[in-house]
Amino acid sequence: MPSTPATPATAQIGVTGLAVMGSNLARNFARHGHTVAVHNRTYAKTEALIGEHGHEGNFVPAETAEEFVAALQKPRRIVIMVKAGDPTDAVIGEFAALLEPGDVIIDGGNAHFADTRRREKELREKGIHFVGAGISGGEEGALHGPSIMPGGSEESYNSLGPLLESIAAKAKDGTPCCTHIGPDGAGHFVKMVHNGIEYADMQLIAEAYDLLRHVAGYEPQRIAETFRTWNTGRLDSYLIEITAEVLAHTDAATGRPFVDVVADGAEQKGTGRWTVQTALDLGIPVSGIAEAVFARSVSGHADLRGAARELPGPAREPLAPAAAGEFAALVEEALYASKVVSYAQGWNMISAASAEYGWDIDLGAVAAIWRGGCIIRAAFLDRIRAAFAADPQLPTLLADKGFAAEVGKAQDAWRSVVATAVGRGVPTPGFSAALAYYDALRAERLPAALTQAQRDFFGAHTYRRTDREGSFHTLWGGDRSEEQTG
Amino acid sequence: MPSTPATPATAQIGVTGLAVMGSNLARNFARHGHTVAVHNRTYAKTEALIGEHGHEGNFVPAETAEEFVAALQKPRRIVIMVKAGDPTDAVIGEFAALLEPGDVIIDGGNAHFADTRRREKELREKGIHFVGAGISGGEEGALHGPSIMPGGSEESYNSLGPLLESIAAKAKDGTPCCTHIGPDGAGHFVKMVHNGIEYADMQLIAEAYDLLRHVAGYEPQRIAETFRTWNTGRLDSYLIEITAEVLAHTDAATGRPFVDVVADGAEQKGTGRWTVQTALDLGIPVSGIAEAVFARSVSGHADLRGAARELPGPAREPLAPAAAGEFAALVEEALYASKVVSYAQGWNMISAASAEYGWDIDLGAVAAIWRGGCIIRAAFLDRIRAAFAADPQLPTLLADKGFAAEVGKAQDAWRSVVATAVGRGVPTPGFSAALAYYDALRAERLPAALTQAQRDFFGAHTYRRTDREGSFHTLWGGDRSEEQTG
Repeated sequence: MPSTPATPATAQIGVTGLAVMGSNLARNFARHGHTVAVHNRTYAKTEALIGEHGHEGNFVPAETAEEFVAALQKPRRIVIMVKAGDPTDAVIGEFAALLEPGDVIIDGGNAHFADTRRREKELREKGIHFVGAGISGGEEGALHGPSIMPGGSEESYNSLGPLLESIAAKAKDGTPCCTHIGPDGAGHFVKMVHNGIEYADMQLIAEAYDLLRHVAGYEPQRIAETFRTWNTGRLDSYLIEITAEVLAHTDAATGRPFVDVVADGAEQKGTGRWTVQTALDLGIPVSGIAEAVFARSVSGHADLRGAARELPGPAREPLAPAAAGEFAALVEEALYASKVVSYAQGWNMISAASAEYGWDIDLGAVAAIWRGGCIIRAAFLDRIRAAFAADPQLPTLLADKGFAAEVGKAQDAWRSVVATAVGRGVPTPGFSAALAYYDALRAERLPAALTQAQRDFFGAHTYRRTDREGSFHTLWGGDRSEEQTG
Repeated sequence: MPSTPATPATAQIGVTGLAVMGSNLARNFARHGHTVAVHNRTYAKTEALIGEHGHEGNFVPAETAEEFVAALQKPRRIVIMVKAGDPTDAVIGEFAALLEPGDVIIDGGNAHFADTRRREKELREKGIHFVGAGISGGEEGALHGPSIMPGGSEESYNSLGPLLESIAAKAKDGTPCCTHIGPDGAGHFVKMVHNGIEYADMQLIAEAYDLLRHVAGYEPQRIAETFRTWNTGRLDSYLIEITAEVLAHTDAATGRPFVDVVADGAEQKGTGRWTVQTALDLGIPVSGIAEAVFARSVSGHADLRGAARELPGPAREPLAPAAAGEFAALVEEALYASKVVSYAQGWNMISAASAEYGWDIDLGAVAAIWRGGCIIRAAFLDRIRAAFAADPQLPTLLADKGFAAEVGKAQDAWRSVVATAVGRGVPTPGFSAALAYYDALRAERLPAALTQAQRDFFGAHTYRRTDREGSFHTLWGGDRSEEQTG
């Protein structure tokens, strides 16, 4: 870098890409006593950050990529906070050319884990560590303490971990919400599943709200109180907390409940979709997440909804006030049981990917770092941590004694709520899918035997028998005798 | 081709890849009076075909690719029947080098439509027509009349269509089950959706069986009779017909009902998964197909099922015999209504892809060519053809007057069956998802408003209002005033 004035290498970490997430992350590092080099494609943003927040700690503003790199102590650690996709590749390419073996590039965006695997491989060949780090908690989390899910090599975590742990959220027991998830794409994979579970959580909350509104007959303020009460129990979580906040909010312009003036089309940015697509590739059923993604899609299809609005259904008569309170208590149980199923499905997915890609992910540690900082943060996650601590090979959360007992106790209420919803025409795709999954898992025999027999009938796909090893085919078009095929 | 003996170009069509599907397709062409060049990587298979079936028509066996090409009239038409993926690419490459502009390569395998789009583009640049043709009906269909879904250029269909139509199944009104679906990957796309719908159909049938078995308390023979009766009504279809055949079958080795000796793990080859993954990319909810794919996955997860088998649930007491018959009639209604939803979702997907890729697919024609030959062939499909004939812009099948009336009439039974299943612990993910979709589509307001408000709370994702145009954000972390953002 001959034309660059000699910049003293004082910064422990650099952040490039100073939109809100990047700026807040940089400030978080600075506030924790680290010297932070900051860089942006247009220098004005860097100047704005220094102007507004320069007093919060030690920042080294860099106008060029070369200055930025020169400002970093070795091994250099650069956090990239730019848009996923091509912009990320472009920035990686730009900096990789300026770095040396042993340096570390961290992608803190929502990259697809397959892209992270590709990038890690490419940079590894140059001796550069590439860390795909999931960061959850939104803008506020980035500033005050996110949950961080870094992938990449063990060696990179040795150099980077203490820095990340210092700015991460802290769980109630004081441990940082950051741990080395596993090699290459493991961090971004786990972040993707976090988001998928978030979709499912939000859908289940939406269904609970809908039932309290249209079956219990509660007004939004009353429902806000109900969620506030729930938030003192086993459902205690950030999402339940903000549900109460949203439902208690009154629209200033109209004086109406805020939730009633918001258009009922929910949007999505893609990580929920990725989660379901990836689960399908892994052969893991994630019906709770899938129904949540589909529910958002349905809500946004004005064409379909307009065409179907006149379809007949039962009248939505609310319950008598005396029965409403009892029903609300049942909804809490249904919500909790459905939530356990969603998390069980999400962890199955992490476990399957860990085996598929050789990541050796500590399933309990994932729960531990989601206890704080992230959108699905909840007391509940400490229970999941404990379940995997007690049995690291637990095949499903539903088999954990504690969760099994709770869900078993909730199942009558759960069935009652779904049956009521179905009878009254309130859509509960999430509750229903979770319950169907529960009943399928515990079934002694599934009708999949018929499905497989049909496959043998029309496609000679063979079947297995319950009483003998091997593969078999029945000559359906002939004398219907059976032949062993394998 | 200087070293090849002069082969007279007598064949109207060639088939390469003589496993069962390829052989049967070649025989079907020959039986319809076409001269068929046949070729296989190992010549022994070609000889075997000629030895066993040479008397059925005019075959031209070719030992080499060059002989095979030389045997074909121009424009040459070559049907490739090899494994999807790399083998298909290899065979295409081999023949493309021997063909001339104007010739046609047909891929009759189950390729992913994205691969078909890529291949079509590559060959188009060489002036060769590439036709991805979905072929449904299995081995029997290939021989006696499949349903054929060719994509590719109009021009290629002019040359190829009459040949394909001659060997296709015929609907009851005599029209061939083959039509030009649309450009490039349209044919393979539509075949994929066919298979996705097939998954959903099979899952719904499996649930109906499970309910008749465990709620109505019927034995398999009795259920076979029930399906046979259903097959005389609006459910009349190949899949219902073979369900009765399978359920009526007795296992020779044990004397037990065949369905009871078949292991209850259903397998899958991937087109159902592709369908759901593609629907997610298109933003189309296909919950019926997704639950079917997941149900097969669940059935195969012995680890999860083993771990969860002891979870508590209601006792599976069958109904009193007097009530069983009435319940069975309700199941028919639930099955029919759920089936309509699955097909509505499938057609939404075809419509969305047609718009996305500029395919201009005739939605009614797709139904018309599925009336015969394919696995989901059914009387029902003529109703779908008629619905789109009456309104080519129909946004959902559920909005068709006839289907709306039937589903509306069935909805009480549908709700009753799902509530009963939920109460008795029989998993009905397909029935439940279909009903939830129906109720979501017809909902005046969905709780997606809460979901979108939450997104604005934690991620500043903004929302729309019901009373004004524009995008808005509430300053949740501040004074909770609202700002317009767009």
